Amino acid sequence: MEGDNSLKYISFSSIIDSSFWHKLYQLKLDEDRLEEKEREIRGFYLQPNTCSLIVDCTSFNREYESQLGKNQFTTIKYLCDKRLSYNNSFLSATGYLLNFNSASKLKDSNKNLIIEKYGKLIKKDIDSGKAIENPSLLTKFVLITFANLKTFEFIYWFGFPALSSLTFKLLTKPEPLNSVFSDEQIDNLLVSHQELSDENKSVFAVIRGSDKLKCMTLKEYIGLQNKSSIKGMYICFLDPSSDKDYPGWPLRNILTLLVSQCKDIWPIDVICLRIGAPFESSLVLSVSIDEESKQDVWIGWEKNKRDKFGPRCINLQNDLDPLRIADSSADLNLKLMKWRLVPDLDLDIIKSQKCLLLGAGTLGCSVARNLVAWGVRHVTFVDNGRVSFSNPVRQSLFSYGDCDLGAGGKMKAEAAALALKAILPTINSTGVTLEIPMPGHYSATIENAVKLHDLIEEHDVVFLLTDSRESRWLPTVICSVLQKLAITTALGYDTYLVMRHGQAEGANQKLGCYFCNDVTAPGNSMEDRTLDQQCTVTRPGVSNVASALAVELLVSVLQHRQKGVATSTEETVLGILPHSIRGFISHFTHILPSTVSFSQCIACSPIVEKSYSENKTEFLDNVFKSTKYLEDLTGLTELFKATDSLEMLELNDEDDYDEDDEENLESMEDLGEV
Amino acid sequence: MEGDNSLKYISFSSIIDSSFWHKLYQLKLDEDRLEEKEREIRGFYLQPNTCSLIVDCTSFNREYESQLGKNQFTTIKYLCDKRLSYNNSFLSATGYLLNFNSASKLKDSNKNLIIEKYGKLIKKDIDSGKAIENPSLLTKFVLITFANLKTFEFIYWFGFPALSSLTFKLLTKPEPLNSVFSDEQIDNLLVSHQELSDENKSVFAVIRGSDKLKCMTLKEYIGLQNKSSIKGMYICFLDPSSDKDYPGWPLRNILTLLVSQCKDIWPIDVICLRIGAPFESSLVLSVSIDEESKQDVWIGWEKNKRDKFGPRCINLQNDLDPLRIADSSADLNLKLMKWRLVPDLDLDIIKSQKCLLLGAGTLGCSVARNLVAWGVRHVTFVDNGRVSFSNPVRQSLFSYGDCDLGAGGKMKAEAAALALKAILPTINSTGVTLEIPMPGHYSATIENAVKLHDLIEEHDVVFLLTDSRESRWLPTVICSVLQKLAITTALGYDTYLVMRHGQAEGANQKLGCYFCNDVTAPGNSMEDRTLDQQCTVTRPGVSNVASALAVELLVSVLQHRQKGVATSTEETVLGILPHSIRGFISHFTHILPSTVSFSQCIACSPIVEKSYSENKTEFLDNVFKSTKYLEDLTGLTELFKATDSLEMLELNDEDDYDEDDEENLESMEDLGEV
Repeated sequence: MEGDNSLKYISFSSIIDSSFWHKLYQLKLDEDRLEEKEREIRGFYLQPNTCSLIVDCTSFNREYESQLGKNQFTTIKYLCDKRLSYNNSFLSATGYLLNFNSASKLKDSNKNLIIEKYGKLIKKDIDSGKAIENPSLLTKFVLITFANLKTFEFIYWFGFPALSSLTFKLLTKPEPLNSVFSDEQIDNLLVSHQELSDENKSVFAVIRGSDKLKCMTLKEYIGLQNKSSIKGMYICFLDPSSDKDYPGWPLRNILTLLVSQCKDIWPIDVICLRIGAPFESSLVLSVSIDEESKQDVWIGWEKNKRDKFGPRCINLQNDLDPLRIADSSADLNLKLMKWRLVPDLDLDIIKSQKCLLLGAGTLGCSVARNLVAWGVRHVTFVDNGRVSFSNPVRQSLFSYGDCDLGAGGKMKAEAAALALKAILPTINSTGVTLEIPMPGHYSATIENAVKLHDLIEEHDVVFLLTDSRESRWLPTVICSVLQKLAITTALGYDTYLVMRHGQAEGANQKLGCYFCNDVTAPGNSMEDRTLDQQCTVTRPGVSNVASALAVELLVSVLQHRQKGVATSTEETVLGILPHSIRGFISHFTHILPSTVSFSQCIACSPIVEKSYSENKTEFLDNVFKSTKYLEDLTGLTELFKATDSLEMLELNDEDDYDEDDEENLESMEDLGEV
Repeated sequence: MEGDNSLKYISFSSIIDSSFWHKLYQLKLDEDRLEEKEREIRGFYLQPNTCSLIVDCTSFNREYESQLGKNQFTTIKYLCDKRLSYNNSFLSATGYLLNFNSASKLKDSNKNLIIEKYGKLIKKDIDSGKAIENPSLLTKFVLITFANLKTFEFIYWFGFPALSSLTFKLLTKPEPLNSVFSDEQIDNLLVSHQELSDENKSVFAVIRGSDKLKCMTLKEYIGLQNKSSIKGMYICFLDPSSDKDYPGWPLRNILTLLVSQCKDIWPIDVICLRIGAPFESSLVLSVSIDEESKQDVWIGWEKNKRDKFGPRCINLQNDLDPLRIADSSADLNLKLMKWRLVPDLDLDIIKSQKCLLLGAGTLGCSVARNLVAWGVRHVTFVDNGRVSFSNPVRQSLFSYGDCDLGAGGKMKAEAAALALKAILPTINSTGVTLEIPMPGHYSATIENAVKLHDLIEEHDVVFLLTDSRESRWLPTVICSVLQKLAITTALGYDTYLVMRHGQAEGANQKLGCYFCNDVTAPGNSMEDRTLDQQCTVTRPGVSNVASALAVELLVSVLQHRQKGVATSTEETVLGILPHSIRGFISHFTHILPSTVSFSQCIACSPIVEKSYSENKTEFLDNVFKSTKYLEDLTGLTELFKATDSLEMLELNDEDDYDEDDEENLESMEDLGEV
């Protein structure tokens, strides 16, 4: 202090609870989006302390006080506890949050202009007299930020505006409060302070009457002082500084107010009251004006950790529950779509879909990946195969390690479900090993049909991704009966079909299902096939394109008010809603055929729905025994020879050989052998 | 034997070395394909033994003997060793392999007809006299198989044709050889046997002259017998049976031959010679005809392990090197394409491509998966980013575990390379962490440019999959200079572009590159972008469709004689060869624009190629400092205002904030603070 009697202040230092960043993250992503909004927030500071200004998630609330006592704090819990016990010593400050859209915009912003802008707000409150009635308006702050929603990094910089063009000097060395006043006088002061209204508690005045000290409001003080200068008066403020020599930053704007509002009072005496600390730490100052420049210059940007003026950067990844980060991050790209491109996109309906994937092969894996990328969090796989060595290069949820030699590979449904969880642990994914009952197959059971029925009932949308025509039949029937949205994907060698099955409602004509164009009942199509017919002999790109389009089609359908009932001429915010997409990789073309439900369809016609609904067991028993039954039932037998079946290749991941089949081989003569 | 003096035989039992199945697998997949070929093979049997007939990989050789002594056997190594030491006792048999296309075709085949067919071949050799001159023709076998190339399961059934309509009886109990002949006589026999030519060693005759035994050929025996029945003669054969009571299966057809070729010789004496075993185990039989039916009935199917007539099934997965299985399996689906759909498909050229993927993000991961599915085994990723929490749901080679909290995530290039190896360990995949130097970027270095140049030189095809326009510039220049095939993929929100860059040669007009339509030099396009512009804000399906099509385009180009030089009007076995594909997910449409190289292109024009080639360092230095340089160089400055740049959104996976940037912030006033 020697040789320099200018008054200096302990500047505010900021403390940000991570809950603040969470709230900011969410507001930016879901509300502000592209807008660079200025937001009024609230900070608080405690006293005495090392002049910390604290923000947390409650800083965004309009009714700040209403949140008090709710334990929403994490990193600053110790401060919080302290705050609650010294309720009266807790002070709030108004802040202005400017969240920039990019790091470079933050960097390029004019910091002098910003601090001046908010400094002038203080000045305005002083000039209007508002700050006299509510001195907490003197402590304002500005916070500029860039929230990188992708990396959970936040760049930020606090400013606490103050006039640097107005300086003060100390006439004497600061004295401890208890060397100026007796303990009794100090008690008077505290009792009298409690009687002030809340808004006057942070800055007030003290008058020394006889032996007693008595508090009055700032307004009263100024009124008295402007009438006639009175001796024995002190300006008093709750000081967040705990420094033995220097008062805290708030004093700076208090003095500015006094310069502006009071004439001929200088020098004045100031009590820096530090309630909750020993009273020798509270200071009494004698202050006079040093220099007053004509032009206001506002300062107050906080230094960073390296003691330089510059923003700070915090990466919250280490601070947060990694699962929570992963889950929010997964949705990031989707939410960004709503910022500019498709503000009306309904992401919630997508996220809430429970998706049932029948088949966990090439299509199943790929469809699941596309669903998860679109935010779906509930995926159930049904498959009865095991992962074989030829799978991982095409089936994107499996790896070499799933092709266990000994056991013949993991069950596909379960391995796929686990793989989804490895991508995002918060996904609710399940694998169900189940053989889908097929017409004309001896292995088809009512029990499995009931299981499948229940699974479909529990889900919102069903993807038909199996590799044979007949395995699509029962799911199609059940979806039709239960009015579930069904999406079929089927592959040819260099072609693909993506189709949504019709849901009937109201006036819209019901769209056709996979079987509507195909007038033969599904039989055992795999039985006598060569290996190239049994395997998925397709150009690898075919399945990836088809699965992506299948999910895009679902997402588009979900955006329509009528969902699966929407006709193929409708559009949504995402584009058109075709009934089916047929693609041809060899010429990179699509056609979008639309058909209506066929009245004699073996899967979705009224007679089939009725037979299934009325006596499921008998109906299925008949179908499983012979596929002819379906043709008779629907009257297709007559039509049978009239039309060729689709030439699209069916896929098969399984081989059907069962060693016990040897029993069926004709028995051989046994002559001449031992 | 009591009460039943009919002659019985120890039937052959088959032993199949796993090398046999490997060879069959390969022949079916690569040569036979859809053809159900009958293939002549060779088996061998040892004597004496438990009448085993053995096949291995050499069974497919035409010159069977030439393989002898080459140690190609695994499971039957002990037999092999034995075989080599008893060279003379090794006998071969001709077999017929019928490999069916499906398990059900094998099952449904008429076994009686098959055994009869090959039995009749024996009969024909007997009737023609061929078998007299070469008695090994009497021992034939048939092998029916189904090779499941997908599961490495083989179903198979051996048959050893013999007439069951001709039966014989024993007149006396079999006697040990050394109880009929003295040791000296047996020595005579063996010495004399050595003097027979090789083809007569398996079946011959022995005549008892005075005290000595002497060998003669089967032909001589029949000649003598048909002249006048001579006493003291024995039919002798090398007997694979080691049973103390019964001769081996070959005797059956020998007797059939004798019935057919000799009159009035019955009963005959037979020596079942078992060289290499104690001579008491060789048997001497007295045999007469029991019954001869008019109609030939052929039998001989082998029983399986359950002592039933039926095929056996072997799964070789447990027997093989799992890596080898994985590697073959991965190619299975591709090779099947050649069976029926695209016989002229050149898979080898695809498999041999060394692919460089610039960018290991959403596109890089997906392109890599498509490449591997198409059989590519050499993939190098270049990226300088780390896996972040928002990546795994869209970037299909990463999982939650790659987003390490502490270290900020694994390096993407390396993580992607490891993930490919996890799919198929035999893939040669590498990750290179490298920042691609960009025009106008202060971080661009000549060193990195040289690294990139070397990488491109080492590869056959380059995929440009980064997320900014400027990062595509240098790779485009280098590919153009080095005449490497380059494929660019770029994404918009619901659109995509897949484009092959032109390679000039001969009369074909060079196709345009990514920059040919875009008359501004690439600058720092990421600097002032909001988060939705910095991130990959696309419909998730877009990248999956685009990556699949990018690889399909490459594969199609590789099928063309001229490769990347081929114009956009050409076709291949896989279809058309567009220059570029632009897709629009909102309407499920494609357009296929084709453009020629732009003479002032900032990436592929002659002046740029020349500048790069002649003085790389100076040229790049200028470009890295200012993008204006490129516009001046190519004369684009003049054109600059005439055209708008592409409106396709650029993607960015990175955020650019560097804490040191704070130094660049304007320095703040420092007044009034401690």
